[in-house]
Amino acid sequence: MPGGELQTVVHDASEVVVGKRDGAWPGEGSELLETYEDAAVAVVDGEIAAVGPTDEVLREYPAENAEEAYDATGQAVVPGFVDPHTHAVFAGDRSDEFEAKLKGKTYQEILADGGGILRTVRAVREATERELAANLREHLDAMLAYGTTTVEVKSGYGLDAESELKLLSAVETVAADHVVDVVPTFMGAHAVPEGQDTDDYVDDVVDEQIPAAAEQGVAEYCDVFCEEGVFSVEQSRRVLEAGRDHGLTPKVHAEELAHIGGTKLAADVAATSADHLLHSTREDVDALVDADVVPVVLPGTAFGLGAEYADAAEMLDAGAPVAVATDFNPNCHSRSMGFAQSLCCVEMGMTPAQALVAATEHAAMALDRPTKGRLDEGAPADMAIVDAPSHVHVPYQFGENVVDAVFKDGARVA
Amino acid sequence: MPGGELQTVVHDASEVVVGKRDGAWPGEGSELLETYEDAAVAVVDGEIAAVGPTDEVLREYPAENAEEAYDATGQAVVPGFVDPHTHAVFAGDRSDEFEAKLKGKTYQEILADGGGILRTVRAVREATERELAANLREHLDAMLAYGTTTVEVKSGYGLDAESELKLLSAVETVAADHVVDVVPTFMGAHAVPEGQDTDDYVDDVVDEQIPAAAEQGVAEYCDVFCEEGVFSVEQSRRVLEAGRDHGLTPKVHAEELAHIGGTKLAADVAATSADHLLHSTREDVDALVDADVVPVVLPGTAFGLGAEYADAAEMLDAGAPVAVATDFNPNCHSRSMGFAQSLCCVEMGMTPAQALVAATEHAAMALDRPTKGRLDEGAPADMAIVDAPSHVHVPYQFGENVVDAVFKDGARVA
Ligand SMILES: [Zn+2]
Ligand SMILES: [Zn+2]
Repeated sequence: MPGGELQTVVHDASEVVVGKRDGAWPGEGSELLETYEDAAVAVVDGEIAAVGPTDEVLREYPAENAEEAYDATGQAVVPGFVDPHTHAVFAGDRSDEFEAKLKGKTYQEILADGGGILRTVRAVREATERELAANLREHLDAMLAYGTTTVEVKSGYGLDAESELKLLSAVETVAADHVVDVVPTFMGAHAVPEGQDTDDYVDDVVDEQIPAAAEQGVAEYCDVFCEEGVFSVEQSRRVLEAGRDHGLTPKVHAEELAHIGGTKLAADVAATSADHLLHSTREDVDALVDADVVPVVLPGTAFGLGAEYADAAEMLDAGAPVAVATDFNPNCHSRSMGFAQSLCCVEMGMTPAQALVAATEHAAMALDRPTKGRLDEGAPADMAIVDAPSHVHVPYQFGENVVDAVFKDGARVA
Repeated sequence: MPGGELQTVVHDASEVVVGKRDGAWPGEGSELLETYEDAAVAVVDGEIAAVGPTDEVLREYPAENAEEAYDATGQAVVPGFVDPHTHAVFAGDRSDEFEAKLKGKTYQEILADGGGILRTVRAVREATERELAANLREHLDAMLAYGTTTVEVKSGYGLDAESELKLLSAVETVAADHVVDVVPTFMGAHAVPEGQDTDDYVDDVVDEQIPAAAEQGVAEYCDVFCEEGVFSVEQSRRVLEAGRDHGLTPKVHAEELAHIGGTKLAADVAATSADHLLHSTREDVDALVDADVVPVVLPGTAFGLGAEYADAAEMLDAGAPVAVATDFNPNCHSRSMGFAQSLCCVEMGMTPAQALVAATEHAAMALDRPTKGRLDEGAPADMAIVDAPSHVHVPYQFGENVVDAVFKDGARVA
């Protein structure tokens, strides 16, 4: 046996999905995926040592020699989901706004009543770092149970240097010992604080927050809400370039509510991803493809708000490596990447195979984690076991949690 | 202490929802519900002995005297969900059709390829009663985990006397020992078997299947798919009247795809419920209200098919006691009443309180189970514990399972 101890063998799975087949994207169905039937995965020292037909894998890695043997009869093994866009670190409860919207209140009225994002900002400023960490831990626990093994988490409910650092510090604390891999993003430019001028606030983000966040050393990305009435393209560019100067890689919230040029900006500054994209054009999408920027769709947001969905068909037609995320936040309280995949299929016309790639390999690209989101030999053994015979059941069983077990670096964690 | 042993005390819940407030339907928000905050429920011999503020309940029913004490701090207690419309007893896997539809295949093309409902009929005819029972058991287990404590289950994938009886017999077997309460419905008139004339098939249902089902004694209701191109109003009436003659109470699948008069038929024959109702008019809805027929909406079907939703606003305006169900079947693979409530809110404009009543008290009315779906003193202690501080979180946390624990007749079962 090569290397160390045989940690885990998952055997007799109906299907193991390795990842997308080389050059097959955006092919529609099973031909898009590299899969094995009646298959097994062997894990040595947290990494995948073998994946293939059960009899072949067991010949080299007998289940009885493994610390943990998992019989996956009737089940499918897929890469652990990667959630590349969340606002999972916050305080407070805004479920009453969900109710108010259903009774016909507009977002403007909710804001006027002291609701919306600035209410979360107030709650975050009042919360201790410990409380924020406890909340985040609970969310990561839930995500793990839904099959997610890597999650991006943005700050952005602090909106001043002290509170943004408190959020990032809470993320660091949780990331240090939670089994889910956490990718931290600084997003001071998430909204403009009450009563402040936008340019003045951008100065604060650029001159105070970014240098402080960089010095703190937790964040890897710098994101901005480039949107009509929030941060203009030029303001967003200032933020992202300052971030880049301090070692933070750009990400962009682009064209969610209107088309103002956020997608082109993402291409210009070589962002790792451009997210939302409800109003991006074909030309925008082509620019992303040319610049190797991953487009991330967030269908949960549209579902929760009863809004429209991004044009996934156009992105697929352009050959773009579409990724999907939950966008989990107080306005979109869904932590399930399985449900995000259901929405990809039902509301955006993607196939189950495309949705799975979007939720794994492409999502990992949106976080520049090339070894994640696939079950290749040598990759970290992050796996979700689906309690059904194929990956198609992930979106097909909508509103359910089809994940029966989760392995992280080869260890069973859920 | 009145009565027998103190079985269970659930205490310190943020909220306990008893049911709708008398005369308040269809009031929109919390004023619609009879609730207690900082509340407890005491259970004696499977029935609710007390519900109210924690300190009051504990004074009479001390937690330390209970066989089981459950600390519901930070959680909400709601009546166990009642799912009044499912086709949960079947065999086979049709997830590939979900995929085919996303690739653009029409339902007609799927049927031409041997897919659709008649494929499930073939699988059911080939399955043993034991296999059917095992499948149903698995589905009930999942439903229970999502907080459902009472489920209606229809036959209708047999389409001949022998196979319909086999389905009902499987339901009877499972109902006998599964913790979920099962309400069995005979639905031989679910589709017309391949190559058979509809009138001939109705003869078979009326002359052979209904008498046989009645003699078998399992089914309580008789349902029919009254729909353009399937069973006409007159054919449906024959089926329902024959059922009534044999002691089976009518239910109707009405106006799902077209308006042909199924709703009026339901009122005419005094059905317990009329279900789907996508094309029913205001006049139809008023007729249901006058005849005490419960309208049941099935938003999961619309979600899974990308189709339109029933006009819940019109039903609410008419004061109708709208109920909601999953319609779980191979074409709508969702067993979560929580998700059905999310769809009620997000896609049909109902409030969380209205959706909860639809999923509990009104759903129980749709099955003529007046003691179910409320947490009144004396009612069976069927309760779902929501892992969040209020019932609003049930629809708000869409695509998730917010149910942390389930009690059936006072015993913790999930
Ligand atoms: Zn976002
Ligand atoms: Zn039905």
